Amino acid sequence: MRYKITIEYDGTGLAGWQRQKNKISVQEILEESIEKLTQEKVLTVASGRTDAGVHARGQVVHFDLQKEFDEHNIRHGLNFYLVEKPVAVIDSKIVAEDFHARFSSKKRYYRYIILNRPSPSKLDKYRAWFVPQYLDVPLMQQAAKHLEGHHDFSSFRSSECQANSPVKTLDEIKITREGDFIFFDISAKSFLHNMVRNLVGTLKAVGIKKLSPDAIPEILAAKNRSKAGETAPPQGLYFMKVDY
Amino acid sequence: MRYKITIEYDGTGLAGWQRQKNKISVQEILEESIEKLTQEKVLTVASGRTDAGVHARGQVVHFDLQKEFDEHNIRHGLNFYLVEKPVAVIDSKIVAEDFHARFSSKKRYYRYIILNRPSPSKLDKYRAWFVPQYLDVPLMQQAAKHLEGHHDFSSFRSSECQANSPVKTLDEIKITREGDFIFFDISAKSFLHNMVRNLVGTLKAVGIKKLSPDAIPEILAAKNRSKAGETAPPQGLYFMKVDY
Repeated sequence: MRYKITIEYDGTGLAGWQRQKNKISVQEILEESIEKLTQEKVLTVASGRTDAGVHARGQVVHFDLQKEFDEHNIRHGLNFYLVEKPVAVIDSKIVAEDFHARFSSKKRYYRYIILNRPSPSKLDKYRAWFVPQYLDVPLMQQAAKHLEGHHDFSSFRSSECQANSPVKTLDEIKITREGDFIFFDISAKSFLHNMVRNLVGTLKAVGIKKLSPDAIPEILAAKNRSKAGETAPPQGLYFMKVDY
Repeated sequence: MRYKITIEYDGTGLAGWQRQKNKISVQEILEESIEKLTQEKVLTVASGRTDAGVHARGQVVHFDLQKEFDEHNIRHGLNFYLVEKPVAVIDSKIVAEDFHARFSSKKRYYRYIILNRPSPSKLDKYRAWFVPQYLDVPLMQQAAKHLEGHHDFSSFRSSECQANSPVKTLDEIKITREGDFIFFDISAKSFLHNMVRNLVGTLKAVGIKKLSPDAIPEILAAKNRSKAGETAPPQGLYFMKVDY
């Protein structure tokens, strides 16, 4: 039986999604709780790997079990074993055997949060990127228009990226200000490694007027990571949702 | 010289605003940072005392200094000494000597956040009250209408409350749902001890249909704490703003 679960996590202090030696990962925490509940050792597959410090409100994961469990019992049972951990299961379903959390994904949604005010925050220290310089949202929106669509995103790709092709279709970058917070809601079928954080770092350079919105087409055309802006820090990034 | 500062704090793990023996309070953290910056021992006065676990986005505090400091240097200097602490200064001003953070307050604004979904949250564990039963917002809004205005709030008053009179004027209880979150934005010139949390606990009883909105006038008339609902937990409460 294949199970699809939707999980939330507070990425603060975690090594990210993927299992790593001597570090605590979301995958390890989750697989251990599945083993405690079901007495089965499983390999979990996530829709998208998230880096250290990145959060999730709706990461999707699949795994297979020999024994059959009720959908709701999976959620309740895992949450029982996860009660002291930074991971929670918010939904669980039995799915067809050909469902794949990663390869069946049609669209992924990320949110990036910037706190934009002169003073740092304690409530949002590990939940947003603190940018004290005033950010011009209309300028960032102009720049974002140049990034939406089908492009070679080599300039926004981490050197560790293992994707076959740097060409992606970015469906939307919606930028909204609410009080001192700026939200970047970004969606695409798939992303390159660090792409969202590199996009936001570049948009921030536009927001502080270090970069003109019209520079974006040149940055894309350069296919050179050093032409784009800095990598925004992980604590502002949230994996929100997946469409299948 | 009298200084008015606006502060934010993450109340998680703190004993609340007021200094207490063998516990860490916001007041102690703040007064120690003022002493480090100015070499003066001061007594700070807050607009409203908050309980253990309660957060603030815009608590207002005043204190007096013998030496004169630039307004901005107070903010930057205090934030330097507060960098590892859960308290941050987000604004600082020199004010008239008769300004009083508590007694000059014209209106105080609190926000209470409920996370209303079947599964618990890790990101909001210390930031919201997790209520798994579905809450009916229109019913709670009807109940809130009975609470707004000039009333004897004895039924919503903690037994430890030291206010002279239980009669208060509640300006507004605005209830809005955004996704899985329900926000209660509550404002009044002043509140009784635990009043906001007791109001929210009672509205939650209405939301789960344990209590009818029409029961509210009777609860107010009873002037008896045991007639109203439970005290909502502290981690969902935020001191947002003060008008002077």
